[in-house]
Amino acid sequence: MRSVFIHPTALVETKDIGAGSRVWAYAHVMQGARVGQNCNVGDHCFIEIGARIGNNVTIKNGNAIWSGVSLEDGVFVGPTVVFTNDLWPRSPRLPEAGRRYSDSKWLVRTRVERGASLGAGAVIIAGVTIGEYAMVAAGALVTKSVPCHALVKGGPARVSGWVCRCGEPLHRKRGRMVCEQCGLEFKGARGDVRPVER
Amino acid sequence: MRSVFIHPTALVETKDIGAGSRVWAYAHVMQGARVGQNCNVGDHCFIEIGARIGNNVTIKNGNAIWSGVSLEDGVFVGPTVVFTNDLWPRSPRLPEAGRRYSDSKWLVRTRVERGASLGAGAVIIAGVTIGEYAMVAAGALVTKSVPCHALVKGGPARVSGWVCRCGEPLHRKRGRMVCEQCGLEFKGARGDVRPVER
Amino acid sequence: MRSVFIHPTALVETKDIGAGSRVWAYAHVMQGARVGQNCNVGDHCFIEIGARIGNNVTIKNGNAIWSGVSLEDGVFVGPTVVFTNDLWPRSPRLPEAGRRYSDSKWLVRTRVERGASLGAGAVIIAGVTIGEYAMVAAGALVTKSVPCHALVKGGPARVSGWVCRCGEPLHRKRGRMVCEQCGLEFKGARGDVRPVER
Repeated sequence: MRSVFIHPTALVETKDIGAGSRVWAYAHVMQGARVGQNCNVGDHCFIEIGARIGNNVTIKNGNAIWSGVSLEDGVFVGPTVVFTNDLWPRSPRLPEAGRRYSDSKWLVRTRVERGASLGAGAVIIAGVTIGEYAMVAAGALVTKSVPCHALVKGGPARVSGWVCRCGEPLHRKRGRMVCEQCGLEFKGARGDVRPVER
Repeated sequence: MRSVFIHPTALVETKDIGAGSRVWAYAHVMQGARVGQNCNVGDHCFIEIGARIGNNVTIKNGNAIWSGVSLEDGVFVGPTVVFTNDLWPRSPRLPEAGRRYSDSKWLVRTRVERGASLGAGAVIIAGVTIGEYAMVAAGALVTKSVPCHALVKGGPARVSGWVCRCGEPLHRKRGRMVCEQCGLEFKGARGDVRPVER
Repeated sequence: MRSVFIHPTALVETKDIGAGSRVWAYAHVMQGARVGQNCNVGDHCFIEIGARIGNNVTIKNGNAIWSGVSLEDGVFVGPTVVFTNDLWPRSPRLPEAGRRYSDSKWLVRTRVERGASLGAGAVIIAGVTIGEYAMVAAGALVTKSVPCHALVKGGPARVSGWVCRCGEPLHRKRGRMVCEQCGLEFKGARGDVRPVER
C-alpha cells in the first residue's frame, strides 16, 4: 500500500487520511479532518476538523478548508480560493455576539461535487453546491449554486459557458455540444447540461 | 491570569500580547506588534511591527496585519482578508522608486472600529475607517470608509443594508429597525444608523 | 559579497538565489526556482520550480509564484496576489482529466516586466504580459495584457490612468503629462505612453 507523504515542515493530526495522499510544506491538517486517497494538499494549506475531502482531490497552495466544507472526488481547488462557513460573522469573543456562537447554528455548509474546479482566488459564499464538473473562473465570487458542467465568472458569478469532464470548454455547433478533446457529446441547455448516455 | 498560547510551530516575537490570546500554527507576530487580551490569531497569519490589535479580536487564517492597521476590540477578520498600507506601491528596491521609500510618507493607515467584521477575501484599500459593527461582505473591495452598522458589498463596495451589533441583518418595518435576535432598536438612515439609547 | 538571508523557519532548496536576497518566515523556495539579487520574499510565500525572478524584486507575504511566471527586475508583488498557469484546470488526479496532464501543454506563461507593481489581492489570468512600470490596482482581475505605465482597475481590469516609473499617478495638463515627483515627461496616449527621451 502506498503510504501518506507528509512534508517535514507540515503538521498532520488526523489519522483519517488515505493512501498515496501528500501534504506539503507548512500545511496543517487538523485532527478530525477526513482526507481521501491520492490527494495533494499544497503548501500553507489548512484543513479543519469537520472538513470532508474525497479521493484524487488537488488542493493548491494557501487554501483553508473549513468545517462544513466537503470536496468530493477529483475536485480541483486552485491557489488561494476562499471558503466560508458563516453568513453573518462576528468575532465569537465579542460579548455582543456571544449568543450567536453559543451553539453551531451559525455553521453553513458548502458542497463541491465530483470533478469540479474552483479557480484561483475565487470566493465561495457558504450554503452553495457546486455541481459535478463545474468550473468556477479565477477571481469569481460564488453566491449561489452552480449547475453541473457550468462555467461561472464574475462577481456575483454567472453562467458564461459549459465545460467537459476533462476541462475543455464546450461549443455548440448545429445544436450539438461535443468536446473537441474527448468526443463526449452533451445535451440540454441552461441549468441542465449533461453528457449523452449511450 | 490566563497565559498566552503559542502553537509550537508559531513564532511570537512581541512581548506586547495580552492574557488569554492564542496564536496558531505557522503564524508570525513580529516584535513591536501589539495584540490585546483574548484574541485568536489563526494559522499562517502575520502581524507586523506597528500593527495594533485590541481585545477579543478574531483573526482567521492567512491574514497579514500590516504596520498602520489598527483593529479595535471585538473585530472579526475573515479568512484571507487583504489589507494594504501603500496607495501607489513600487518595489522599494527599484532604484527609480528609491526616493519614495526614503521616508515613511508612503504609509497610509486603516482603522477597523469596535465589533466590525471583514468578510473572507475582502480587500481593504488603505486610508479608510470601517465603522463600529459594520460588516464587509466576503469578496468586497473597500475603497472608502464604511459607516457604523453598514453592510457593504461588491467592488467597489457600496452600502446594501444594515446589521446589528450581534451580526444579524436589520429590516425596516413600519419605519423602525429592530433586531429580531437582540430586540435592539435602531434609528437613522443612510450613513448614520445607530442604536436607540434608552 | 552580501550573503543570502534565510529565516530559520524558511526553506530554500534552490542554489540559484542572488546576493543580498532575503527569504522570510515559513516561505518555501523550491529547487529549480531562480531568484535574483537583492530580492525580498515575504512570509508564507512559495516560489515554484520554473519561476523566474529578477533582481530588486519585492514579493510581499502570502504569494505563490508558479512555474511559468517570470518577474523582471524591480517588480512589486503586493500581499496575496494570485497567479495562475492553467486556463482550464482540473485535478490532475481526476481520471477524466488524465490526458490533459500527460504533457505540459496546459502550462500558460505570465510575464511581469521591469518595475511593474501588482496590487494586493489582484488575480492574474495566465497568458498576459504586464508592461514596464504598469500598476495593477488592489483587487483587480487581470484578464488581458497591460500596457507599459498603465494603471488598471476592476474586474475585468481596464486602464484607468497612467503612472510614472516612481509610482506617482500622472495627470495631463495642457496636453503634457509630467510627473510631479520626478519631473519626468511622458508622451503618447491610450495603449502607448512612455517617457520622452532627451
